[in-house]
Amino acid sequence: MFRKWIPAIDWLSNYKKDDLSSDLQAGLIVAIMLIPQGMAYAMLAGLPPVVGLYASTIPLLIYALFGTSRQLAVGPVAMVSLLVLTGVSTLAEPGSQEFISLALLLMLMVGVIQFLMGILRLGFLVNFLSHAVISGFTSAAAIIIGLSQLKDLIGVKLEAGKDVFKILGESVMRVGEINPITLAIGVISIVLLVIFKKYIPKVPGPLVVVVLSIVTVAMLNLHTRNVNIVGEVPGGLPVLSMPSISIDAMVALLPIALTISFVGFMESIAMAKAIAAKEKYKVDSNKELVGLGLANVGGAFFSAYPVTGGFSRSAVNYQSGARTPLASVITAILILITLLFLTDLFYFLPKAVLAAIIMVAVYSLIDIKELKYLFKIRKLDAITWIITFIATLVIGIEQGILIGVVFSLLVFIWKSAYPHMAELGYVEKIGVYRNISRYPSAKTREDLIIYRLDESLYFANMSFLEDKLCGLVADKPTTKYIILDFSAVNSIDAVSIHALEEMIENCQAGEITFLFSGVKGPVRDLLKKADWDSKYKGQYEYHSIQEAIDDIS
Amino acid sequence: MFRKWIPAIDWLSNYKKDDLSSDLQAGLIVAIMLIPQGMAYAMLAGLPPVVGLYASTIPLLIYALFGTSRQLAVGPVAMVSLLVLTGVSTLAEPGSQEFISLALLLMLMVGVIQFLMGILRLGFLVNFLSHAVISGFTSAAAIIIGLSQLKDLIGVKLEAGKDVFKILGESVMRVGEINPITLAIGVISIVLLVIFKKYIPKVPGPLVVVVLSIVTVAMLNLHTRNVNIVGEVPGGLPVLSMPSISIDAMVALLPIALTISFVGFMESIAMAKAIAAKEKYKVDSNKELVGLGLANVGGAFFSAYPVTGGFSRSAVNYQSGARTPLASVITAILILITLLFLTDLFYFLPKAVLAAIIMVAVYSLIDIKELKYLFKIRKLDAITWIITFIATLVIGIEQGILIGVVFSLLVFIWKSAYPHMAELGYVEKIGVYRNISRYPSAKTREDLIIYRLDESLYFANMSFLEDKLCGLVADKPTTKYIILDFSAVNSIDAVSIHALEEMIENCQAGEITFLFSGVKGPVRDLLKKADWDSKYKGQYEYHSIQEAIDDIS
Repeated sequence: MFRKWIPAIDWLSNYKKDDLSSDLQAGLIVAIMLIPQGMAYAMLAGLPPVVGLYASTIPLLIYALFGTSRQLAVGPVAMVSLLVLTGVSTLAEPGSQEFISLALLLMLMVGVIQFLMGILRLGFLVNFLSHAVISGFTSAAAIIIGLSQLKDLIGVKLEAGKDVFKILGESVMRVGEINPITLAIGVISIVLLVIFKKYIPKVPGPLVVVVLSIVTVAMLNLHTRNVNIVGEVPGGLPVLSMPSISIDAMVALLPIALTISFVGFMESIAMAKAIAAKEKYKVDSNKELVGLGLANVGGAFFSAYPVTGGFSRSAVNYQSGARTPLASVITAILILITLLFLTDLFYFLPKAVLAAIIMVAVYSLIDIKELKYLFKIRKLDAITWIITFIATLVIGIEQGILIGVVFSLLVFIWKSAYPHMAELGYVEKIGVYRNISRYPSAKTREDLIIYRLDESLYFANMSFLEDKLCGLVADKPTTKYIILDFSAVNSIDAVSIHALEEMIENCQAGEITFLFSGVKGPVRDLLKKADWDSKYKGQYEYHSIQEAIDDIS
Repeated sequence: MFRKWIPAIDWLSNYKKDDLSSDLQAGLIVAIMLIPQGMAYAMLAGLPPVVGLYASTIPLLIYALFGTSRQLAVGPVAMVSLLVLTGVSTLAEPGSQEFISLALLLMLMVGVIQFLMGILRLGFLVNFLSHAVISGFTSAAAIIIGLSQLKDLIGVKLEAGKDVFKILGESVMRVGEINPITLAIGVISIVLLVIFKKYIPKVPGPLVVVVLSIVTVAMLNLHTRNVNIVGEVPGGLPVLSMPSISIDAMVALLPIALTISFVGFMESIAMAKAIAAKEKYKVDSNKELVGLGLANVGGAFFSAYPVTGGFSRSAVNYQSGARTPLASVITAILILITLLFLTDLFYFLPKAVLAAIIMVAVYSLIDIKELKYLFKIRKLDAITWIITFIATLVIGIEQGILIGVVFSLLVFIWKSAYPHMAELGYVEKIGVYRNISRYPSAKTREDLIIYRLDESLYFANMSFLEDKLCGLVADKPTTKYIILDFSAVNSIDAVSIHALEEMIENCQAGEITFLFSGVKGPVRDLLKKADWDSKYKGQYEYHSIQEAIDDIS
């Protein structure tokens, strides 16, 4: 009973000694990566840096107990941080005490929503997010996130919020106010981070840049020359406290809470599934929701802010050898130790370095490669990407993803409503019936139309079929028989059976007989239910076109 | 050039003398039917009865010029009248001068919208209305229409608007106020109408009831005993006048104008197509929109109210022998003659008779038969019907149809996201590969999974396939080969090609080889574009499962 809901029982009872050193190493590497990232993402979310560290402790431990992925690295991520800023900043000033407590309430809401979605088995909903939508959305969000860091990178307090166009405009107008030392620190950090990432991936670039910049600022007293630094980071463990609950705030936060629940889960499950497929174990979407949900609920009581499974951090965790969630437990312990003893070290850390870390991290999320791939294969999918991207950038973050989802579903419906259909003729050379527009030499008969539908039939494409067939019959008034090749009709709905019957009635009155060949089992079952045995006995059970033709000639 | 947009040129230049007597007869019969119906529907719409007669003149003549259906009988219909009442009564008191002028503005808007939809070739949109939705919506609307007539039938001025539950409640509470003579007239009319409809369909019941009731009321002076009568019906032709245009009113009327444009067109095109299929000519959705649109625009300048092609009236027109739109021209001329010379005759017509005519007319629209049919064949379609029905009845007329459309599309998406898939085995007796759960004796191999997908692949069902396959592989760790039978995959999108590649990569790393059999032309073309020739050369071009198996063993 417990085993079903607490996957930790499984991996704890089967824990092998061999795994320990791998888990230790992965846990350490992720912790080193997470400390600067956690602080940076918290600042992106409009919160004090220490909140990012808090979010890297309790939630990790809870997820290790309840999550089904063995390598997923839970914690603060850029996308969710941006969403927190978007949602909460309409209610309170970023950085204020009210903002912090609203972020906690939001985290609680996200946790409860994810938990309930898991219990209600709604994990499937994420399947309706096309990768084209995810990629377009992520790319736009990455740009928004990157530009939101510009103010820290150039040391100018921009007034523009998250509107990328306003940020760019204001930056250009206020180019004279740029703090050259801040900018230099930022640009050098970016260059170093890129070099480390590209050429020395074994060494954790962010840690190097953080250490170097702290030493530099402290030695040269740069903070007295208007270089913004992180300043006092309060030490000590996160304190257990109750998030302050207000109905008004909850109503206002609901849309963003839903978005975070969904987007966070999507990022998490995508990575969890990818690793699980490589490692040949199964993750369960609904249990993942429960695990993430509990991690968020728990974090809400320990001064954290919404977390999810991070893409790049999970990849690092996996590549560094993590075998079990113990790696995450080790990460969390190391962060707790940092909180207890090492927070003073961050006093001189320039904010520009954190901005640089975020910018380099999100740059790889701008997925132009995917767009090119989609363009090459199917333009319609590329258009989905572009529409999601533009909508996210121009209209808004929550609206962008919604517009993308609706558009991608409409594309699917649209394609199904205008399926491929073909008139067939007999190709003597190979002895089969083929599309006469691909095989112009295929033979047809004056009294017969053979027509193949390459799609399941449902209400929206039924009248397309009708129109096509009516057109063919009008062009060939000698038609006495129509053979509909149903071999590609995987399913049918009651509405189109009805419409099919009407079509047969109208045509049979005009002395055209319909025959159906290759009708599949599930479709045949429905036709039987519609009394076709008494209405059209013998007309719809031909196994092949040839069988039907043999019958009429 | 003109021929393309004015179908009348065609039928006028080919007019045969033989057709004239049929057209004359049909035109006369429809006129006899239309006079009481037109007045009744106008009253249902909250307009003076004479407006219904106006709407039966100019619009008919315009449609005869521009419509592509030869038998469609355009004019006032119950559903559109209800929508006019719904939309305009929120802005003005039914029956008031302002109400009449808003109805004209609405008609103009409907005309312009339909005309533009036709020009922009948007006629296809109607295909996305499932018949289950139409039937559920129509049934609910029929109940709303029928109950809205209750006040005239029982002679009590009910306060409740269109809310069916309130109407019923109020009727019960005020049962003591019922005017017994009015009720008797109404009930006798209903009985007579039903008898005529069922047993003497050749005789126009409404005309008989109208004549009988006028004579009775006039002779017995029943109007002095609180029986509501139609009263003065102004004689003379409709006058050319400009609808008064106000931006505010247009904004307020836009939703209902869109609904009427759409619902009216849907009723019209369904009937037009049904008759055209029987008579073997083609109607063009977009030209129909242009024709209906112009009929409405024209009517708006002649004191009419929104019209469309009526279901039952078109059936009568067709069955009475109408061969060309000349029948409608004759109808219109007869109505014009009525307006000129016969309006005085309607003075004593009791409103209860008009209510009875509407009730009997709409009763046949309550389509429980369709619901039963859907239930028998596919429950999901029956649920679509029920949801549309309840939403229309409880939430509202415009919302009901929208909810139905969204639900029916979601059902389609849902079904496609969880397609039928089957693991196959070799059935020796018939020498083919079949679903092992239907053929338990089918042979499988320890190192091989053969899997068939009965649906096109797209983003929303890709992870369902992944989950299923991963589950199979986990249950059968000896698997070395997976053959995916793609013979039922009619199409694929770029996103699922990508996901497929990831799946192959993950599995091939784990030493499972993927082979694809029966890949269709359009799918193969896309796979080629995705460089499968270089990535998976020879793995995806097997014509049959057997060919793939021969290759690996």
